[in-house]
Amino acid sequence: MSLSLNQWTTRHWSVAEAVDGCVRHGLEAVGLWREKVAEQGLAQSVKLVREAGLRVSSLCRGGFLTAGGEAFARALDDNRRAIDEAAELSAACLVMVVGGLPGVRPGESLPAAGFSRDVSGARERVAEALAELAPYAGERGVKLALEPLHPIYCPDRAVLSTLGQALDLSLAHPEEQVGVVVDTFHVWWDPRVFEDIARAGRRIASYQVCDYLHPLPQDILLGRGMMGDGVIDFGPITRAVLDAGYAGDVEVEIFNADVWAADPDEVVATMKARYDEVVLP
Amino acid sequence: MSLSLNQWTTRHWSVAEAVDGCVRHGLEAVGLWREKVAEQGLAQSVKLVREAGLRVSSLCRGGFLTAGGEAFARALDDNRRAIDEAAELSAACLVMVVGGLPGVRPGESLPAAGFSRDVSGARERVAEALAELAPYAGERGVKLALEPLHPIYCPDRAVLSTLGQALDLSLAHPEEQVGVVVDTFHVWWDPRVFEDIARAGRRIASYQVCDYLHPLPQDILLGRGMMGDGVIDFGPITRAVLDAGYAGDVEVEIFNADVWAADPDEVVATMKARYDEVVLP
Repeated sequence: MSLSLNQWTTRHWSVAEAVDGCVRHGLEAVGLWREKVAEQGLAQSVKLVREAGLRVSSLCRGGFLTAGGEAFARALDDNRRAIDEAAELSAACLVMVVGGLPGVRPGESLPAAGFSRDVSGARERVAEALAELAPYAGERGVKLALEPLHPIYCPDRAVLSTLGQALDLSLAHPEEQVGVVVDTFHVWWDPRVFEDIARAGRRIASYQVCDYLHPLPQDILLGRGMMGDGVIDFGPITRAVLDAGYAGDVEVEIFNADVWAADPDEVVATMKARYDEVVLP
Repeated sequence: MSLSLNQWTTRHWSVAEAVDGCVRHGLEAVGLWREKVAEQGLAQSVKLVREAGLRVSSLCRGGFLTAGGEAFARALDDNRRAIDEAAELSAACLVMVVGGLPGVRPGESLPAAGFSRDVSGARERVAEALAELAPYAGERGVKLALEPLHPIYCPDRAVLSTLGQALDLSLAHPEEQVGVVVDTFHVWWDPRVFEDIARAGRRIASYQVCDYLHPLPQDILLGRGMMGDGVIDFGPITRAVLDAGYAGDVEVEIFNADVWAADPDEVVATMKARYDEVVLP
């Protein structure tokens, strides 16, 4: 296991700055975001990570596949583009945030256009989309990493709410095409998490860490904290992920207004120290 | 199934006012809170519900059993008193909100005195407490109803986070001593909810309904809305609870600043209408 910087942790860094920061701090891997890659240019981003000798531990993110009709077709097209980008970057996986209830958007009140309460239907649509996308990803050597999100995000971001559910969905596809993300923020509370990590085994495509703050801030998306600042006991989860056979990178992905306002180099230094202190078992 | 007013929905009503309100609106049952019963007086509360011919669909609430040492002994004592009160009121069950991580309090920042990240240990303490309390409840004809709370409340209110987990815990005890609560707010997102409702069968001691608002308000405790105002598709859940054999009352329990500020009689009228429109399958 080796530490990786998910570039959203240092949100104001471009791909070039994040790559440079990783090298400066002795990290071997970086997790990239599509928006940032687009700003830098895909070819230039590929060149930067190759020349720096970095692994791309993940590309964030594909998904948002729960809307019906034309929006579904558009989402599939966008996900194919994301897969192509992940292939270019030789990313270890493409993280998939599958989408919430149709028509429900973060921060926007109900009722909304196209709104549906049919969570089961939304989940079926994700399975249908995967049947389209997994072979496409497989042909390009890309692994789709299904990310279960904490149930607070079920309305607007992901109807995949538990690791067990994501794992069950992945099993319809070859292991090299579809895996799962274990993100401590999303799974720490789950009474089945240790059982499901063991069951996932080699399906674990990504291990992401950050803490769960208490109380959550008003914008619940920003409730992710530096490891050690919240309620999560990381050691047992990391141990379980290791025991399951995961040997990939450990990405630190923090969405947090204070972290984003801080000096990125200090954030990376703190992240390295906390990784040793509280994440490793 | 018959509709019941959980008195916290009309928060400013005393027991006497809630009983009167239920009678005025033709309801057959009321869910009471210990604080309100204490204010009214236990004997007087018993007299009021008996004379009104109301069933007490639940007493809220026991629990908060996760702290260690002397606090654990104090919590057991308090829960024995709650059981005694539930027996006096002939409540259908005593709702148990088991408590969160030791030392973590709603709205209070970390670190806190006595804080522990050991969620597994906290869960073991709940099991130990139940072993003490279930026989005590059984002797008094009271059923403890374990309430799994939405995982957002895992840090500070309940380390029981899924219906399946609550059900598994209940199975160590006789059915007449320990059951589970199905509360739509807490379980709607759970991919296993229909399977676990069926598995719970006669263990379902209480069915509580309210909606899950989007976006959640800053105080996440108050994200409970009137049925129809949020993201929950009630019909399938109610159908599953009925199919599992539940024939008790359906309590409406809403924590919501706007609902509390409204005329309680209008709230009850709306609740009755919405129950017919969106809760019944």
